[in-house]
Amino acid sequence: MPLPITYADVAAAQERLAGVAHRTPVLRSSTADEIAGAKLFFKCENFQRMGAFKFRGAYNALAQLSKEQGEKGVVAYSSGNHAQGVALAAKLLSMPAAIVMPSDAPAVKVAATRGYGAEVVSYGRYQEDREVIGKRLAAERGMTLIPPYNHPHVMAGQGTAANELVQEVPDLDVLLVCLGGGGLISGCAVAAKQLNPKIRVIGVEPEAGNDVQQSFRSGKIVKIDTPKTIADGAQTQAVGDLTFAVIQALVDDIVTVSDAQLVDAMRFAASRMKMVVEPTGALAMAAAMSGGLALAGKRIGVIISGGNVDIAQFAKLVG
Amino acid sequence: MPLPITYADVAAAQERLAGVAHRTPVLRSSTADEIAGAKLFFKCENFQRMGAFKFRGAYNALAQLSKEQGEKGVVAYSSGNHAQGVALAAKLLSMPAAIVMPSDAPAVKVAATRGYGAEVVSYGRYQEDREVIGKRLAAERGMTLIPPYNHPHVMAGQGTAANELVQEVPDLDVLLVCLGGGGLISGCAVAAKQLNPKIRVIGVEPEAGNDVQQSFRSGKIVKIDTPKTIADGAQTQAVGDLTFAVIQALVDDIVTVSDAQLVDAMRFAASRMKMVVEPTGALAMAAAMSGGLALAGKRIGVIISGGNVDIAQFAKLVG
Repeated sequence: MPLPITYADVAAAQERLAGVAHRTPVLRSSTADEIAGAKLFFKCENFQRMGAFKFRGAYNALAQLSKEQGEKGVVAYSSGNHAQGVALAAKLLSMPAAIVMPSDAPAVKVAATRGYGAEVVSYGRYQEDREVIGKRLAAERGMTLIPPYNHPHVMAGQGTAANELVQEVPDLDVLLVCLGGGGLISGCAVAAKQLNPKIRVIGVEPEAGNDVQQSFRSGKIVKIDTPKTIADGAQTQAVGDLTFAVIQALVDDIVTVSDAQLVDAMRFAASRMKMVVEPTGALAMAAAMSGGLALAGKRIGVIISGGNVDIAQFAKLVG
Repeated sequence: MPLPITYADVAAAQERLAGVAHRTPVLRSSTADEIAGAKLFFKCENFQRMGAFKFRGAYNALAQLSKEQGEKGVVAYSSGNHAQGVALAAKLLSMPAAIVMPSDAPAVKVAATRGYGAEVVSYGRYQEDREVIGKRLAAERGMTLIPPYNHPHVMAGQGTAANELVQEVPDLDVLLVCLGGGGLISGCAVAAKQLNPKIRVIGVEPEAGNDVQQSFRSGKIVKIDTPKTIADGAQTQAVGDLTFAVIQALVDDIVTVSDAQLVDAMRFAASRMKMVVEPTGALAMAAAMSGGLALAGKRIGVIISGGNVDIAQFAKLVG
């Protein structure tokens, strides 16, 4: 069976995103290099619009809807970065958007989503199923459901992050990518391997939620209970079938890091690199700097996937 | 009397810094644009090596020393970013460096300076004069004293920050620059006015330490008591004669912001732009976003000068 996306899809997404998404900077830190014993190139998606790579995939998906679909609008269920990515993309494309969020979602996230002009549909986290609500809304209103990762347009859009990085730094030995549902790593693996076939692509999951590592090793999708980790963007229970197909074909390994290693990486990012990184966004960085991988002397691409962390929580974690 | 530096000096500094200093990114924020009612282009020197623009001027000065001067080494007196800039530049150029720091300087700064291989010479802040100690060390050891701002090579080096920004964004209406001793704004004004003669260059001082504003208005250098402000990098008592000559000739206005406005800007930078900015580094940003200037509809360059703030203090300020 052919893979669900090709490099042409990523290249087309890159065209769609030109002048819309930020071309995020690639930052260096000689201190980080010393700690890792390698040369690290940080692709900073925490500086992407709405603070995370998710804008790329959401915009790429919405931009491909038909005129009629666009007029009816889009639905997403998420309390995190995907919701805000869809809300912002819908705003830019003048589409209605409904975001299904738990009624106990942080007020700041609800406000941010409304700030992008989206309708927030609340549900009781313990009584109702957000997927059911999302599908019902889509059916009732004729809206298009935009899944957070298991969709070819979303995956291709996320791949533009690695496409930009590998174009800017063509001779990387390894690419480390934060891993939740697999949208980012699947798109990035397609782009990176096309531009640099020798590159090793490694996914990084939280230790407590290593479902993709288990799936990767066993060859079939493993579902786990919602993991307890500060990496809230990687609390997925299972990878998608489309993202998993790409991961099986193109990803070289999947490793894990602990919450303590995430906090260390966040503190380093703040104190030495002057960046706010959310826990999930620090997965790849933590793997690069915690010494568990054989990276000595190599050139390593590290995707920092986002920076959306409540600033009081951030201060508590790193202060 | 001719100005102490010309654009040729900034251009030559830019060549010396190529491949040594980071070419820092210019970041955008649509939320910041909305708040300011203008288009803001943030030149992020908090991502510069050692965390502040000061590396530019220090390296440019040290790189122009003779072989003999380089072998004898350099002295700087500073507890802040200039010290670390000189220490890092000396390390890269394999020169000995002695940094005169108060005995009560934060341990983290002492450690960072030693980490760059420099010798730290302690003195009692209330018993001794660091300038006298610096000059004595220079005389005894034949070392070259590198002043923090009032030196043509330092000024020209700092000007490369605006040189890069205005090359990347040629059609700015206004450039806002953080202002302490005047090293950054003097170099930046020379570069910006050369590349874009219509640009207005505005310096931003802490309200409590507006000595340069007073000097600018009265036409002669005014000295004040050490001001009480969280902007520790702008606690200068008086501008230099060389930097003042450039400020008088090329700067269009000098404005001030309060400590509360600095904290607001730092919090916005952290929560929305995912950046750690030190209080002094937020001066220009605070002026752009606090509504005191007539910026509506304009294109504004904003130099964020540094991000070196103790992370616990940062967490306390913005958390």
